[in-house]
Amino acid sequence: MDLLIKDRLMPKVPKTIEDLGEFGFIRSIANNCINNPEGVIQGIGDDCAVIGPFGEKVLLVTTDLLAESIHFLLDRIPPEHIGEKAIAVNLSDIAAMGGVPRHAFVSIALPLSFPVDVANALYKGIKGVCKRYGVNILGGDTSASPAGLFINIVVTGEAHKDKVVYRKGASIGEIVYVCGTLGESVAGLKILKGEIPARETQWPSLILAHTRPRPLVEEGSIIGTSGLASAMIDVSDGLVADLEHICEQSGVGAEIREELIPLSGELARLGERYHVDVMEYALMGGEDYCLLAAVPPDNAVQFEGLLEEKTGKRPTAIGKITRGSGVRFIGRDGKQRSLAKGGYDHFLK
Amino acid sequence: MDLLIKDRLMPKVPKTIEDLGEFGFIRSIANNCINNPEGVIQGIGDDCAVIGPFGEKVLLVTTDLLAESIHFLLDRIPPEHIGEKAIAVNLSDIAAMGGVPRHAFVSIALPLSFPVDVANALYKGIKGVCKRYGVNILGGDTSASPAGLFINIVVTGEAHKDKVVYRKGASIGEIVYVCGTLGESVAGLKILKGEIPARETQWPSLILAHTRPRPLVEEGSIIGTSGLASAMIDVSDGLVADLEHICEQSGVGAEIREELIPLSGELARLGERYHVDVMEYALMGGEDYCLLAAVPPDNAVQFEGLLEEKTGKRPTAIGKITRGSGVRFIGRDGKQRSLAKGGYDHFLK
Repeated sequence: MDLLIKDRLMPKVPKTIEDLGEFGFIRSIANNCINNPEGVIQGIGDDCAVIGPFGEKVLLVTTDLLAESIHFLLDRIPPEHIGEKAIAVNLSDIAAMGGVPRHAFVSIALPLSFPVDVANALYKGIKGVCKRYGVNILGGDTSASPAGLFINIVVTGEAHKDKVVYRKGASIGEIVYVCGTLGESVAGLKILKGEIPARETQWPSLILAHTRPRPLVEEGSIIGTSGLASAMIDVSDGLVADLEHICEQSGVGAEIREELIPLSGELARLGERYHVDVMEYALMGGEDYCLLAAVPPDNAVQFEGLLEEKTGKRPTAIGKITRGSGVRFIGRDGKQRSLAKGGYDHFLK
Repeated sequence: MDLLIKDRLMPKVPKTIEDLGEFGFIRSIANNCINNPEGVIQGIGDDCAVIGPFGEKVLLVTTDLLAESIHFLLDRIPPEHIGEKAIAVNLSDIAAMGGVPRHAFVSIALPLSFPVDVANALYKGIKGVCKRYGVNILGGDTSASPAGLFINIVVTGEAHKDKVVYRKGASIGEIVYVCGTLGESVAGLKILKGEIPARETQWPSLILAHTRPRPLVEEGSIIGTSGLASAMIDVSDGLVADLEHICEQSGVGAEIREELIPLSGELARLGERYHVDVMEYALMGGEDYCLLAAVPPDNAVQFEGLLEEKTGKRPTAIGKITRGSGVRFIGRDGKQRSLAKGGYDHFLK
């Protein structure tokens, strides 16, 4: 066998983190993590870990690490908004389990030359969001950084032990709902990065969707307490990628329909004006921080009514849970459309 | 008033994080952190936050952020040992509250070019320590890093609600005890950095004290459960700095005596051989991860006996809690010796 053929037949051995990719890396480290299963209800593999029960309650824990120039551009986004987003993404994870956020732990690494007023603005953003949602900051760590700003926030939350909504609970025939809108965050990012030649001031809600995402804290808690949803996740990697997470963990497939995907008026106008495929943004964009839930058909009317009553906004049914595996996307013509391999991977360029 | 005099009288306004220093920065951000005091027993200001109670139990939470070239040198220390240390320092914080560690959350930012085998070795170190102490890894986050490796680990622990040992509980007349030895870690670091011209292989326990510190998990839990200590902290910033933390939070002073400070044989030999002041290492060094506790005199015999019985090692009485504030260091001649402003500050060069 000559070397050339051997090279072709041999799977490439990943040598760097980039070769492996984020999901590959997570898979490679997510084994042998449980040494004492007592009190562990959910480990790695959902939006939060679930610990307990403590009486009737369980504790939810989530963490997100943000790195300068990977997750945010310090020169394009006000530091207060970076702080807001760093905590908001964690609150969204607590919401995605149906819980109520309680406490935050903020670790931050800063270059020695980092301006104090910028650091204060960052914390102002974090504290503003904490105040809005009644979340305490109970600790953290600070360190010098040899290069760039890093923020790692951990948020704990609470839920009733029987009311936690996992990714793994979806069943065939259930309806897939979205609370919130899709694709706006990535559109805002593309405007900020100059990839779409639009003026920031003319597309305020797209810019805000990216820089100041609102975590659906109230919605998540309402859904959890109601017991009406059987599976939930927040849309951080992108609608399709996150629905695939539900499918994978529930052992089901899903079908979503183009005509049902909610696009905001501003996003639709951006698409027409600059001839960009905003439906792709909605399907693949990521960082939307809406909630994606599977709801049994018998609960659907009550689910829609409850959210409309309590939040003023109806959730949008975008498809259903099916047999099989993976997500199928059905176009307006009724035909299945292919989906580019979706989701954002922090380790792929 | 001329400018020169005005400049002297005006406090310098800190413009960068370096001007402010780590403790100044922490002080500046540690306000307005409590928005909902329900269920908060201890916020910022101790080794762990304390949440609860949940029935008879409370939850302890701590977090440590380690940055490459600030906290560790990837080219001098095996990555497995870096992983071990990243989790060990958190276990030490749980021990310092008298708790039992339960779950860990590991966030890591890596350059794209980071070798997979080095990343695997890091996790091997983290998982090895977790296994030894029955700690689960229940989550975390991964990200690309624009430069350098960052590890943020959160550990949760448990304690009985009446058995948590805080920094703030020390009273005048109590005895100050140390479990473990002091100054070895900084000596090991100085050898590794070439600041002391000693060969690494000849001083194995000093090198190991720096690269593979053993958290006193068992000791911390024994002390907590016994109810014999009234205040405790782990020595991470340095003996004097950490004793000052106890003094500040308890509203007391302390006096420690040179002839009582425990120095290992290897450290004493290093001092003689290279004419370095190893007593200063013991007082100021940092990263010792021993436990420092204040114990009422009536409990002293039982405290020493219990630890000797259960761990084979007697704790060392090094001084006592006094009126006033701050730490006084009494030399062998009975006179007070001055202490350089102690402790390690990550934001000072």
